[in-house]
Amino acid sequence: MLATDVRESGLMSVADISVAQVMSAAVIRYDRGMGRWEPNARGRLLQAALKLYGEQGFEQTTVAEIANEAGLTERTFFRHFADKREVLFAGAGQLQELLVSAVAGAPDSATPIDAVAAALEAAGAQLQQAPELARQRQAIIAASAELQERELIKLASLASAMAGALRRRGVKDPAASLTAEAGMAVFRIAFERWISETSQRDLSQCIRESLDELKAVTAGR
Amino acid sequence: MLATDVRESGLMSVADISVAQVMSAAVIRYDRGMGRWEPNARGRLLQAALKLYGEQGFEQTTVAEIANEAGLTERTFFRHFADKREVLFAGAGQLQELLVSAVAGAPDSATPIDAVAAALEAAGAQLQQAPELARQRQAIIAASAELQERELIKLASLASAMAGALRRRGVKDPAASLTAEAGMAVFRIAFERWISETSQRDLSQCIRESLDELKAVTAGR
Repeated sequence: MLATDVRESGLMSVADISVAQVMSAAVIRYDRGMGRWEPNARGRLLQAALKLYGEQGFEQTTVAEIANEAGLTERTFFRHFADKREVLFAGAGQLQELLVSAVAGAPDSATPIDAVAAALEAAGAQLQQAPELARQRQAIIAASAELQERELIKLASLASAMAGALRRRGVKDPAASLTAEAGMAVFRIAFERWISETSQRDLSQCIRESLDELKAVTAGR
Repeated sequence: MLATDVRESGLMSVADISVAQVMSAAVIRYDRGMGRWEPNARGRLLQAALKLYGEQGFEQTTVAEIANEAGLTERTFFRHFADKREVLFAGAGQLQELLVSAVAGAPDSATPIDAVAAALEAAGAQLQQAPELARQRQAIIAASAELQERELIKLASLASAMAGALRRRGVKDPAASLTAEAGMAVFRIAFERWISETSQRDLSQCIRESLDELKAVTAGR
């Protein structure tokens, strides 16, 4: 019996799956959560994790519970995430790529702060697409010192990546680092504001306003 | 025999010390490292820790080794520091007080960014007094992911404390948070620059230059 046939029959055991995985990894692409028996496994695990972290707390929730809530196995969980904390930070790599490519893609004539502003607005437009998810995630992080630390590290990495992208545009240090770090401060503050507002304003607009505020305060107003 | 007599004779055992400590805690003030048998215990422990962390690595160094290097007991170590990591962050509270009181003490006419600049320069003047210690500490932190995380948390707390001090001056958010966070970015970048330069320039001058650079980039230059 071919792995693809079994896959379609939906009758494989966990042990069989690992064989099939080796046989047809290129077709199935488990890593992206696109396996046919586990439609959107990654998304389901994320939803389940956010639900349980919100209900019973991050510390109290186990990987087994998340997998169970999602109707998947622990094995599948670990195919997608290194541990239960990383479920909350899995989007960081994509966010970093987005910021870096937006800085790189800004017009040659753009000043460093304009290139960073363009990147922040691109990231804002992305996060804007799932406000409820962003809000849930933020509440979970706010409730845990460990997660707040991890978030700080993520933000520092994003700032560092943007500074690198600015340097590749020919911006010298300390201007590159300062612009990137100030940009991340703008982003963080705009994001918190957006999250806490019930009016569901546009995140990009919050970012523009925070940036204008930064310009005003540094100009001594 | 009274505890004070024993103390002066310099002949007490560790067990005796704990009795004497209970009897005369108000006089001896161990917590500030001012016990008569342990002149500058806190400073000696700090020097010993920096030496060992630098020579053999932070992870590899034990509290017993630090105490031994300082010619003190582990018991004395734990009277001064919660753990070996906190030796490197023990000055954070004092730095925070300095920043907060400088923001609070800025003239009423000072803009938020001027109040923050005054605070950063006060902190710079303080750190400037022990450049070699600052340099050693920085090298140790740069070599450990765990310590870098702790440092990020410290800097975030300092920014948060300055934002609070600005709000007490009547500065509204997001201006207060943005000014404090941008200020901490200026401080961090100036500090790294100062540390890495062999010329031993003035830290306050590095801070002023970084702040001017931030003003230039946010103004779109």
